[in-house]
Amino acid sequence: MESRGQVQIVEVGPRDGLQNERVRIATGTKVRFIEALVAAGLRRIEFSSFVHPKAIPQLADAEAVFAQLPKRADLRFSALVPNLHGLERALAAGVSEIAVFTAATDTFVRHNIRMSLEDSLLHFEPVVQRARAEGVAVRGYVSTVFGCPYEGAVRPDQGIDVARRLLALGCGEISVGDTIGVATPGDVHRWLDAAAAAGLPIGQLALHFHDTRGTALANVMAGLDHGVRVFDSSAGGLGGCPYAPGASGNLATEDLIYVLNGLGWETGVDLPALVAASQVIAAEIDHLLPSRYFQATRVQNCMPG
Amino acid sequence: MESRGQVQIVEVGPRDGLQNERVRIATGTKVRFIEALVAAGLRRIEFSSFVHPKAIPQLADAEAVFAQLPKRADLRFSALVPNLHGLERALAAGVSEIAVFTAATDTFVRHNIRMSLEDSLLHFEPVVQRARAEGVAVRGYVSTVFGCPYEGAVRPDQGIDVARRLLALGCGEISVGDTIGVATPGDVHRWLDAAAAAGLPIGQLALHFHDTRGTALANVMAGLDHGVRVFDSSAGGLGGCPYAPGASGNLATEDLIYVLNGLGWETGVDLPALVAASQVIAAEIDHLLPSRYFQATRVQNCMPG
Repeated sequence: MESRGQVQIVEVGPRDGLQNERVRIATGTKVRFIEALVAAGLRRIEFSSFVHPKAIPQLADAEAVFAQLPKRADLRFSALVPNLHGLERALAAGVSEIAVFTAATDTFVRHNIRMSLEDSLLHFEPVVQRARAEGVAVRGYVSTVFGCPYEGAVRPDQGIDVARRLLALGCGEISVGDTIGVATPGDVHRWLDAAAAAGLPIGQLALHFHDTRGTALANVMAGLDHGVRVFDSSAGGLGGCPYAPGASGNLATEDLIYVLNGLGWETGVDLPALVAASQVIAAEIDHLLPSRYFQATRVQNCMPG
Repeated sequence: MESRGQVQIVEVGPRDGLQNERVRIATGTKVRFIEALVAAGLRRIEFSSFVHPKAIPQLADAEAVFAQLPKRADLRFSALVPNLHGLERALAAGVSEIAVFTAATDTFVRHNIRMSLEDSLLHFEPVVQRARAEGVAVRGYVSTVFGCPYEGAVRPDQGIDVARRLLALGCGEISVGDTIGVATPGDVHRWLDAAAAAGLPIGQLALHFHDTRGTALANVMAGLDHGVRVFDSSAGGLGGCPYAPGASGNLATEDLIYVLNGLGWETGVDLPALVAASQVIAAEIDHLLPSRYFQATRVQNCMPG
């Protein structure tokens, strides 16, 4: 098949995925997981968060994980950073990419990081400035762009405004998030039309979909139609609400790669090797990984129809 | 939102879904389920199969189910019919739409209905003729169009040839099936391009996707792009391989309606009422329904990200 071009995957399983797992994963296992993701061909991986260890004990070993990761020019490991203290930890560890996290809706930001949306942007300004002064790239997450668990419907201009301000602060890429998985392809078309009309640089946007209602891959296709070429996903579909039986959060990297391969997009990711990487975590946790593709590698025959 | 037009859903849960359930569902429960599907706005429902009761004991009550269904001019209830004997049962019951079932690949037909693909077409010729002579509409299923569990890859012309021959026999609609859920939107584009080039009437095609690898909704979008306006789905995602933990078979009607609504397609289906219909069966069976949307109606909050 003729290639349509390159698509970048930002693998968020080691951070966004593991932060919701109640089984504590050993540092060595996390390193094996990330090494396996690299072996599968992933080149951008959010490996952890420099959040306070008491806030997310699962990610308290961010320094130790990073110290054991391979350092290569073609690998981009990033970490979430909630504040200047977290940034200093990341810099001391030698991390060269960070991410900051806010949302399109004030109530969500207040629940999530205990400050207003306006304050979160003020709060991150020195973080981004200091990071950039150190030559560290910064990604900005904008959550609840397509819907908010507290405020309900969200207008396109709300997310667009936050994205624009994060870009103005110095973020090089904005990850536009459907945090509760309510977006349909129609919403994605409308949002990206509005974003383009508002002058947001589509080439600096990534899309971060959750498969809560099964729409994530259809939404990715809508994003591709508008020229977006960076998508976040999580190996095995780690993350989301793993303790709601069968519930799904993050779009699974396997499912994403399977569809991109079938459409002729190049990702550089080897699917069997990716399944093997997910298996490193699947063997440790106390629930089934939600990725449809991952599950399909384990399915017996049934009555067709 | 401006309407893009109408899309028809063929609800296959009561037949294709229930035939894979090991918990025996009472006739009255099936009738309540189908009545609830009608109440939700579904107008085309495959209610059972006139197959030998020993072959699929779960569907042995096809006559009793049909006898209790509401008879209205706007409701199209159809049943699968494996042979002339099944057709006579369907005719005696007063059924006005039937479906016959074959596949794009010979090995699959041999495993499934114990005859060759060629023989299956000869076998169905008098069935379709007799049905048409009685004024009964006939739908033809072509399975394994995008991949076969026995033969692997399937060329587009294989399914196209079988579809053309079923149309020539007198089938008014062909349901083109991705039985093992391997198709990606790229495959759907290629198949429908080939079908159109071969002169198949796109307006007489339905697409029947399985969500085994999470691609079903993305595939529906590809089908819509080519002018297909009829899609099969199953309430709650019933069917497929329910005893592989978390595994998914039929595209869930809830997930399909959610995306079609979001894109501005009219289906006439009310989503909360559809979830209530699925709940009739969810309350009886011994596993979770795989529909993402159905599950999302039951999910608690988690750490976002």
